Amino acid sequence: MPRWEPDAVGRLQAAALDLFAEQGFERTTIEEISRRAGLSKRSFFNHFGDKREVLFGPVSEMQRETVTREIAACPGTLPPLEAVVRGLQAAADAVFEARRDAAARRRDIVEANPELRERELRKQAALTDAIAAALRARGVDPDTALLSAHAGMVVHRTAMRRWTRSTDGRSLRDHLSDALNALRATAAQTAGQGDADEAS
Amino acid sequence: MPRWEPDAVGRLQAAALDLFAEQGFERTTIEEISRRAGLSKRSFFNHFGDKREVLFGPVSEMQRETVTREIAACPGTLPPLEAVVRGLQAAADAVFEARRDAAARRRDIVEANPELRERELRKQAALTDAIAAALRARGVDPDTALLSAHAGMVVHRTAMRRWTRSTDGRSLRDHLSDALNALRATAAQTAGQGDADEAS
Repeated sequence: MPRWEPDAVGRLQAAALDLFAEQGFERTTIEEISRRAGLSKRSFFNHFGDKREVLFGPVSEMQRETVTREIAACPGTLPPLEAVVRGLQAAADAVFEARRDAAARRRDIVEANPELRERELRKQAALTDAIAAALRARGVDPDTALLSAHAGMVVHRTAMRRWTRSTDGRSLRDHLSDALNALRATAAQTAGQGDADEAS
Repeated sequence: MPRWEPDAVGRLQAAALDLFAEQGFERTTIEEISRRAGLSKRSFFNHFGDKREVLFGPVSEMQRETVTREIAACPGTLPPLEAVVRGLQAAADAVFEARRDAAARRRDIVEANPELRERELRKQAALTDAIAAALRARGVDPDTALLSAHAGMVVHRTAMRRWTRSTDGRSLRDHLSDALNALRATAAQTAGQGDADEAS
């Protein structure tokens, strides 16, 4: 039985983010992360399968569960993309809002490392599939479910990007609303509104 | 100097698709692909760096070049997402339309293999970045460029999926128009249009 270690996951993640930022992801060992967190290597492996997982593990699990639970709980006639954004907003409040600094540092580390970017893409693809499945469970047809899930991920990526870069203190929830509006505006623009479309 | 080998790339790709479908991606060797195509192993390596690349190589290069060239050539005031879809339509005509059967078989093979799905995600991310760069070169601000590029990729994935699955003979160009309209309809739906939104 592992000893009870208050917030071992949070301490290990904070130590890992510090070390990755200081000396790079590749050069940091699990030994160093555990020592910096004041924990044993055994504690690390109680919570994470490998070094990469410290950047992905519990948070992406919690996100997926919260998003899909909220989608299932939305009123039945709510349009699919709105249901997806409500799910993402529930996860924003429950999982991300208190971790803005960590999210920003994590983003820089992931973007700098091709191997980590790849795992990020895979996690996003898995989340997209889970969202589409949650929509199908609401009776949304498969094509619309997949389209809405992908559109929701565009909103998610846009909002995360702005939230981790901005200093105005707006919540991720609000950035998700803004990003949905931005997607709507971008999608609605047609050539007819321009004055230089050669077909007009 | 390699001998001149008419459509060596096409022959190698067709042979690879046959063999991957018959016996699986993992169990097929480059030797077998070359032999089936009536070419040497050396010919294979004249065109592809490894076995996976036979599913990705020249086609994704041609697609990227065609899409970004077309975006650059669009009228300056065309809205960003419309420019992206025009780019994708140009690539649909030039690269994909004549290869529908190969595209459908390729999709099945990629979806069945995690390693190939991963490379597919990476290629799509690279195409997204190239599209965003082409939009920025038109003077589109970086946030809108990235959002429009991602939205365009949603249109692309939706259209490819329907085109490779449908038997109605509609062109990929038309499926891209349909998918853009579907994205517009999905994005435009708001809770106010439903009759069971608890906030109304």
